[in-house]
Amino acid sequence: MASRSEVEELSREECEQLLASQSLGRIAIVVDGRPQIFPVNYVFEDEVVVFRTSWGLKVDRSPLTPVAFETDMVDTVAGEAWSVVVHGTAQDITAAIDSLSVRLRHLAVAPAAPGERPYWMGVPVLEISGRRFRIPR
Amino acid sequence: MASRSEVEELSREECEQLLASQSLGRIAIVVDGRPQIFPVNYVFEDEVVVFRTSWGLKVDRSPLTPVAFETDMVDTVAGEAWSVVVHGTAQDITAAIDSLSVRLRHLAVAPAAPGERPYWMGVPVLEISGRRFRIPR
Repeated sequence: MASRSEVEELSREECEQLLASQSLGRIAIVVDGRPQIFPVNYVFEDEVVVFRTSWGLKVDRSPLTPVAFETDMVDTVAGEAWSVVVHGTAQDITAAIDSLSVRLRHLAVAPAAPGERPYWMGVPVLEISGRRFRIPR
Repeated sequence: MASRSEVEELSREECEQLLASQSLGRIAIVVDGRPQIFPVNYVFEDEVVVFRTSWGLKVDRSPLTPVAFETDMVDTVAGEAWSVVVHGTAQDITAAIDSLSVRLRHLAVAPAAPGERPYWMGVPVLEISGRRFRIPR
């Protein structure tokens, strides 16, 4: 645990535990040179960030390109805040027949927003980093 | 208020009110063709998202380029969730002498994370959009 004046860099294992503990994050992609950012509900499993989406920029423009994914938590009860960022390449796994994709599509990925989300996207972790620091309770 | 099955597109006025109601968001920038995403504490004032930072990619690589800024809220008490996304161009206003920049530097922008943050950045709103939907209480 960091002291009050420090920002603690988290280990890969800690980052993955924190990533797995949450269900709301944001994905950033580059479209025509401009950044786009979208909140998504996700599940982290087998080193892959999995989310579902409707047709749109996330399906049309994120596969085969670099993406960033972020989640964070301000925990006033524990008196700490943290954030984790993943870099990787998004993949449309909706129709993928490899065994990992098939397994990931069985996850209970539950978008909070209403509407059909027939597309399954996966971001395998290429890089992961995280920071934690103390905040007033 | 949207019905349970709808995602409501928010007006510009609603987006700005919600943006002003929060203090934690995430900024996405493009560095060498890759998206980067950073959580920041911010204040929204006079159509500008203002945050402070230490030396790094946000200061070195975001000015004069397109950025995206996002904040969101899951309010289980009110039974609703919303997100707002801003597009604009980041500007380093640390030493800017125009009257708006001078005024913005007097805002109480309070980074939660420890550490010196001598640089002031502003993202004037070029585009703003937001969505809201109902969630189980």
